[in-house]
Amino acid sequence: MNEEEFIAKIGQGSRELRSPLLVGIGDDAAVFKPHPRHFGFFATDMLCEGVHFLPEEDPKLVGRKALAVNISDIAAMGGRPTLAVLSIAFPKERGAQYGLDLVAGVQSLADEFGISLCGGDTNRSVHGVHVCVSILGESTGKGAVLRSDAKVGDAILVSGKLGDSFATRKHLLFKPRVEEAVFLNENYSLHAMADISDGLIRDLGNIVKASQCGAVLYPEKIPLSDSLKSLAREEQLQRALTDGEDFELVFTMDAKEAERLLSKSSYEFTKVGHIVSEKTLTWSDSQMIKMKGYTHTWS
Amino acid sequence: MNEEEFIAKIGQGSRELRSPLLVGIGDDAAVFKPHPRHFGFFATDMLCEGVHFLPEEDPKLVGRKALAVNISDIAAMGGRPTLAVLSIAFPKERGAQYGLDLVAGVQSLADEFGISLCGGDTNRSVHGVHVCVSILGESTGKGAVLRSDAKVGDAILVSGKLGDSFATRKHLLFKPRVEEAVFLNENYSLHAMADISDGLIRDLGNIVKASQCGAVLYPEKIPLSDSLKSLAREEQLQRALTDGEDFELVFTMDAKEAERLLSKSSYEFTKVGHIVSEKTLTWSDSQMIKMKGYTHTWS
Repeated sequence: MNEEEFIAKIGQGSRELRSPLLVGIGDDAAVFKPHPRHFGFFATDMLCEGVHFLPEEDPKLVGRKALAVNISDIAAMGGRPTLAVLSIAFPKERGAQYGLDLVAGVQSLADEFGISLCGGDTNRSVHGVHVCVSILGESTGKGAVLRSDAKVGDAILVSGKLGDSFATRKHLLFKPRVEEAVFLNENYSLHAMADISDGLIRDLGNIVKASQCGAVLYPEKIPLSDSLKSLAREEQLQRALTDGEDFELVFTMDAKEAERLLSKSSYEFTKVGHIVSEKTLTWSDSQMIKMKGYTHTWS
Repeated sequence: MNEEEFIAKIGQGSRELRSPLLVGIGDDAAVFKPHPRHFGFFATDMLCEGVHFLPEEDPKLVGRKALAVNISDIAAMGGRPTLAVLSIAFPKERGAQYGLDLVAGVQSLADEFGISLCGGDTNRSVHGVHVCVSILGESTGKGAVLRSDAKVGDAILVSGKLGDSFATRKHLLFKPRVEEAVFLNENYSLHAMADISDGLIRDLGNIVKASQCGAVLYPEKIPLSDSLKSLAREEQLQRALTDGEDFELVFTMDAKEAERLLSKSSYEFTKVGHIVSEKTLTWSDSQMIKMKGYTHTWS
C-alpha cells in the first residue's frame, strides 16, 4: 500500500463534513468556517513509543489516546473540540495495517466527540512510532477559562478520582471531560482551570504560578482511585497527587459558587483545597507539600 | 533543564501577541479570535530524523523546515499563515540546547512570516528526533484555492525553478511561496493550486485527479534549476519533475488570464502545460509521462 492509497483509505471514513469543516482530507490544508463570535482554541500533543505507550499496546488505543489528550486540553479551556489533524510516523516493518488501526482509533474517538479528523501527514519512520495530533476547539458563549485567573479564597475542585491512570490502563482509556467542562463553564463562574496531565500537584502548581497565588490542599479530601486501595495511605496520596495522565479537571471558583455546584451537580466533583495569597503549596496543617509531579528532564 | 524551564525559555521569545492570537504559550491551549468572514485553514506535517533530515543537520534548519513545509501548505490554499503549534521529541542525550536551537529555527521563520508560535509539546524520545508542526491560516477575501477546480483548457503554471531541492540543500532553506500565492489569489482568478512537495508529476497528478481531468506538459518549458546543468538533459527533466521538496507552487488558470499574468508579473512564473479532458498525463507529443513522484510505500 503506498501513501496515496493509505490516505485514500483514511479519507473514506471521514467524508461527512460536520460544521465548521468545509473541506476535509485531500487538499493541502483543511478549510473551515470559524464561529464569528466565539474564540478559537488551538493545541497539540505528541505521543512517543517507549514513553507514552509501549510497542505491544493496541494501535487503536494509541490513536485513541493521541486524540484524547488533545481533547482534554480543549476541555481544560472550557470549550468544545471541533477539528483535528493527525501526523503519524511508523516503521515500514509494522505494515500498513498498524497505521490504519491507529487512525481507526483516532477516528472512533473523533466520532464520539463530534470532531472532524480533517487532515494529516503519514511518514515512514526509521525510529519507532510517533503520533502527533493537533486540535482546534471553540469557546462557549462564556469564553475561555485560563490558568491565570484563580483568586484568593477560591475553592479548588477536581473532577473524578485521582491516581489510577496506570493501574487501570486509564491513561489509554480515559474519557476527556468535555461534558463536565462545558457544563461548568456554561452554568457557573469558573476562575481558573487545567487538565491533570502531569499530576494534581504540578497542574495546580501551574495554576497558582500563573495566577500569582498559592494553595492549601486537604489531604483527607483527595478523591482516591479504588485501584489504590491495596497501597499504604501515604503511597495512595503520593500516587493520586503526582501520577501523570489522570486527565481529570482541576478548577477554582468562588467558595459560595462551589457550594452551589456541590449541592446540585450530578457529576462527580470534589473540593480539595482553597487558594491563598502566599505563593506556596501547603497541606491544611501548614506543612509544605514536597511531592513533585511528572516532569521530563534534559541535561 | 526540566520541561517547565524549557517551556519558559521558549515562551520568552514569543510574548508578543500578534492578531489573531489572544493567549499564547503557557495554557492548555492557545486562544485566538478568528476572522469573522474569512475561511480558516488547518494543516500539519511531521519531520522524522533519518527520513526528512539527518542527525548531523543543524537543528535550527530542521526547525525552520518543519514550519516551512506547513507554511507552504497554507500558501497552496491561497492564504496567509497565522498561528502554529510545535511538538518535538528528542533523546535526552542531545541535551536541551538541541531542542532550544530547533525551536529558535521555528521561531525565526515564524517571525519572518508574522506567524505566532502559540503552543506546543516537548517530549523526551527514546527513538530519534521527531518534529511536528501544525498551522492555521486565513483566506484572503478571495477565498480558498482547492485542488479540485482545474478546468479543461486551463494553463498550468509553476513558480520558480524545479529540481534543486537536494542539490542545493533547498529542502532545508526554501522560502514558502506565500507572497506569490496571495498575489495570485488576490489579483487573478485561480482555478486550482497545490505546492510541489512530492514532485511536479505527483502534485499535478493530485490536481488532475481531484478535478477529474488530465494534463499535457511541455518538456522544453519546464524551468530547470541551474544546479542540474551538469546532468544529461533526460536526467535533468527526471529530477525536475519528480524531486520532492521543491515547495514551489503549481496552479491552473484560464489561458487568457495566464497570458495577462505572464506579461505583467515581476515574480517568476512559467507556463508548463495545459489541462485536457482525457484523464492522462502526457507530453506535448502525446507520449504518456511515465515518471513517478516521491512516495512512501508500506507493505
